[in-house]
Amino acid sequence: MSTQQRFVMNTWYAAAWEHELDNTKNLLARKICDVPLVFYKTADDAYAALDDRCCHRAAPLSMGRVEASCLRCMYHGILYNKAGKVVEIPGQTHISNNMKVRAYPVSAKGGMIWVWMGDAELANPNHIHDFPPLVDKTNWRGFEKEAYLHYQANWMLIVDNLADFTHVAFVHTNTLGGSESYAYESVPDEVDELDTGLAIKRWHKNSAPPPFHQRVIPQAEHDVSLDRLNDIEMHIPGVFLMKTQFAPAAPEGKSDASDPHREYRNCQYMTPETWNTTHFFWNYLHNFDLDNAATTTSLKDSLFEGFMEDKVVIEQQQLLLEQSPDFVPRGIGGDKALTVFRKKWRERLNEEVADNASSGEHTSRPVNIRALI
Amino acid sequence: MSTQQRFVMNTWYAAAWEHELDNTKNLLARKICDVPLVFYKTADDAYAALDDRCCHRAAPLSMGRVEASCLRCMYHGILYNKAGKVVEIPGQTHISNNMKVRAYPVSAKGGMIWVWMGDAELANPNHIHDFPPLVDKTNWRGFEKEAYLHYQANWMLIVDNLADFTHVAFVHTNTLGGSESYAYESVPDEVDELDTGLAIKRWHKNSAPPPFHQRVIPQAEHDVSLDRLNDIEMHIPGVFLMKTQFAPAAPEGKSDASDPHREYRNCQYMTPETWNTTHFFWNYLHNFDLDNAATTTSLKDSLFEGFMEDKVVIEQQQLLLEQSPDFVPRGIGGDKALTVFRKKWRERLNEEVADNASSGEHTSRPVNIRALI
Amino acid sequence: MSTQQRFVMNTWYAAAWEHELDNTKNLLARKICDVPLVFYKTADDAYAALDDRCCHRAAPLSMGRVEASCLRCMYHGILYNKAGKVVEIPGQTHISNNMKVRAYPVSAKGGMIWVWMGDAELANPNHIHDFPPLVDKTNWRGFEKEAYLHYQANWMLIVDNLADFTHVAFVHTNTLGGSESYAYESVPDEVDELDTGLAIKRWHKNSAPPPFHQRVIPQAEHDVSLDRLNDIEMHIPGVFLMKTQFAPAAPEGKSDASDPHREYRNCQYMTPETWNTTHFFWNYLHNFDLDNAATTTSLKDSLFEGFMEDKVVIEQQQLLLEQSPDFVPRGIGGDKALTVFRKKWRERLNEEVADNASSGEHTSRPVNIRALI
Repeated sequence: MSTQQRFVMNTWYAAAWEHELDNTKNLLARKICDVPLVFYKTADDAYAALDDRCCHRAAPLSMGRVEASCLRCMYHGILYNKAGKVVEIPGQTHISNNMKVRAYPVSAKGGMIWVWMGDAELANPNHIHDFPPLVDKTNWRGFEKEAYLHYQANWMLIVDNLADFTHVAFVHTNTLGGSESYAYESVPDEVDELDTGLAIKRWHKNSAPPPFHQRVIPQAEHDVSLDRLNDIEMHIPGVFLMKTQFAPAAPEGKSDASDPHREYRNCQYMTPETWNTTHFFWNYLHNFDLDNAATTTSLKDSLFEGFMEDKVVIEQQQLLLEQSPDFVPRGIGGDKALTVFRKKWRERLNEEVADNASSGEHTSRPVNIRALI
Repeated sequence: MSTQQRFVMNTWYAAAWEHELDNTKNLLARKICDVPLVFYKTADDAYAALDDRCCHRAAPLSMGRVEASCLRCMYHGILYNKAGKVVEIPGQTHISNNMKVRAYPVSAKGGMIWVWMGDAELANPNHIHDFPPLVDKTNWRGFEKEAYLHYQANWMLIVDNLADFTHVAFVHTNTLGGSESYAYESVPDEVDELDTGLAIKRWHKNSAPPPFHQRVIPQAEHDVSLDRLNDIEMHIPGVFLMKTQFAPAAPEGKSDASDPHREYRNCQYMTPETWNTTHFFWNYLHNFDLDNAATTTSLKDSLFEGFMEDKVVIEQQQLLLEQSPDFVPRGIGGDKALTVFRKKWRERLNEEVADNASSGEHTSRPVNIRALI
Repeated sequence: MSTQQRFVMNTWYAAAWEHELDNTKNLLARKICDVPLVFYKTADDAYAALDDRCCHRAAPLSMGRVEASCLRCMYHGILYNKAGKVVEIPGQTHISNNMKVRAYPVSAKGGMIWVWMGDAELANPNHIHDFPPLVDKTNWRGFEKEAYLHYQANWMLIVDNLADFTHVAFVHTNTLGGSESYAYESVPDEVDELDTGLAIKRWHKNSAPPPFHQRVIPQAEHDVSLDRLNDIEMHIPGVFLMKTQFAPAAPEGKSDASDPHREYRNCQYMTPETWNTTHFFWNYLHNFDLDNAATTTSLKDSLFEGFMEDKVVIEQQQLLLEQSPDFVPRGIGGDKALTVFRKKWRERLNEEVADNASSGEHTSRPVNIRALI
């Protein structure tokens, strides 16, 4: 079976919120880019990521036990260090050099454990698209256990969704949008290419506060028309970072961002589990009412409601696409951002495939004649 | 991926009972012959059928909203008319000509919405095999919400079932049959070929009333031996229409149909959802006790019980056939009708495939290089 | 579709405990080596096994009815004898010679119905690896309804598990093992090749009674150190027979087996249902407290708990292997027994494939142009 490379591997993927490893075993099984991984926290609070498959007989290491900085397979007791090397085989003194599994670079930032799926020598934690509000407790407040959703859809369909906020008018009319007018009246996108993705600004001028916002502002402000700005960055492979501000509507011209009334910060990380399923991580932070837990909870609930509205559409879209291999999408004006993002991602993938080919790293492998089953 | 044509497309398929569209959204998603469709009722009570997949990004139109005679996709707000043409894109003035989905001819008759899956120019509603008793309230009474079952089986296996009533003796002994003697003693079939299928008559002479019938006749008639006639028409692709009569057993010779005691009418429509699943629609009507709801309900319940007896056998048959690609069926005398029907269906399919080939309509398509996932 | 032979067919497979046929219909549907079979008990308490697929239209015979020594298909009433030959077709006098299904040799021994999947002429019941303790009620007591588990895993992974008891230390620490020291301290295996498999002896000297044993011995013995011997035979295709003895620890040298304190007998039969699923049959017998039902029940519960610990590991292993077609296992010292067993099984399979090829029995078959669906 030959396999074509479908994912960009030389990049940092959001793998797990740190709190997901706070369980009795301090470990987590998670597949990323079709690769089953085990993440674990060592006794000194460091993280490690290994192939979740013992090199001996393919038992899952995620059924194992953390011992100091090592992980023991609990089938026949083989012990691995953080580098994936076997350091003990019960009842046996010699350990051959091929007794090992692959280890993956990991780095924790902003509560998220990031994993590098490609060439370890190229892994530089400075290239992680960190999101400062997540750790800036002075100015921002989000919910403490950052959230996770599992999608039955290719991650790029979620990226598409986020690249055109027209959908806010129709999918989220009664939650995040407020009215269908958002689709007709909001100021057209400014789309700027970035090295690793793009930036989008979208104004919706002189409009009523949308439902999720209205729920957390004083009654007196409910009738005040607002200028709403969504200021977005989107990075390869699937990192979405957004600043949102609501300010009283400016009487003429474009409202400026110098004195926003209320602001939000939102991160959404889309990480492919397989080609057709996605890990989705998110938090939503506010810069007002910092010590009012009801505000934080209300926003979490509203956003969750909105994300579930997306999820049902996108998962149906996925089903239809799986059944329609010949479907050719028709473009509309709103596709500008997603077209740019997909083009940049495709270029990165092509570069990587070309590099691997020239360096002799074959992506197709011979059939294994020694398979267990 | 090349796909071989497996269904007759230039024919009317039973798609949905009209009452199935009486929901808050006036629409229904239903796949027919592997094609995902959306059926909707317009503000003026007409019906339309479109590909259930927005031409923009493949969101399902069945998650959309009917507006007058149009249907709006509720992902990015694109509006389609009944012909499948896009007539509005929010935030955009120009609409290119390729913004459209396929529309399918539909026609409502006898409470059923029929759809034509092939060349629209050939669609003639007069060719629908209408069933007059469904709308003849003077002489016939069935249940008001005609019934629907979903089969995990190829529709032709249900056709086979209906083509040989020997199974009534064994599958339906205690419901529709009455005794196993039906298989041994009933008069052999008369099978006549029709243009679009066949006709079968089968007598069971001088036998006790079967359980479903006994439940709705007076106690005094329970011991009266009857001559039972099933008079069947079966049409391509899967339309089964049956007249049943029970008359007191004639002392000698064949009983004639001139003065039947009690009669039933039954329609069963089998429509392929996919190659391995089927939509099954039915009603069962009686010509006596017209205003006795208990009679109507009893018959519905009895027939439902019988159909579920078939369903479990046929779905197991399907499972075995899927696991046995090399199975070669052995024929018996009772196969005469199903053999004729399958032959006629196969000829229709072959003709259609040949016509498409000569007209340049290729059934295999090139791989789509612009797919979304 | 051509199919490569993957199972040894000329061998006896454990098919069903006799008590599994003690139901109202006296029959059981069970797939073995990918072949759907129906097992039934005749009126004179003999057993028969046929292809579970009527030769007429592929209805399952396991939905049928036993009549004396015959089985009737309850779709159209076709009657089969024990040899698989059709002996009655309702409403038809002539029965052509090709109206038949394949019958398989069966033999009941020790409460188990064994089936021969290959050439019937080679079937010799004396080659069944019978397990005398199952019927020796004078010296042994097990539970009456011998147990069955269904595995979502290739049967050879269960064989592997049983071939290296190191796993007892880690998978079964708190049930069958007792401590992880079993893996480090127990005497190395003696592995002897047998004609049809292998024999293994493994001592664990001077150790505390493991939990399952402690639960059924008097309190006074809880602190007595024991020498434990597991004495195993494993036969192709998947027959595991074990003698276990616990004796007070001998002060020096190897303890001998002449005066064991307490003994157990255990059979485990692994029969492939498909390549990726397995029927697992077992009993566990003790030679003490023969009339104490609490002892029998305690052992059944303990062993069941232990087998479920294996099952979760092995089924995860299966999942990982299905996802990892290129996985190459790395050997360790403990693999000696499983390596021998797999080699012997592979030789048997290769011999059989070669024999079939030279005798013209093709394992690939042409596409069936007369298929029902």
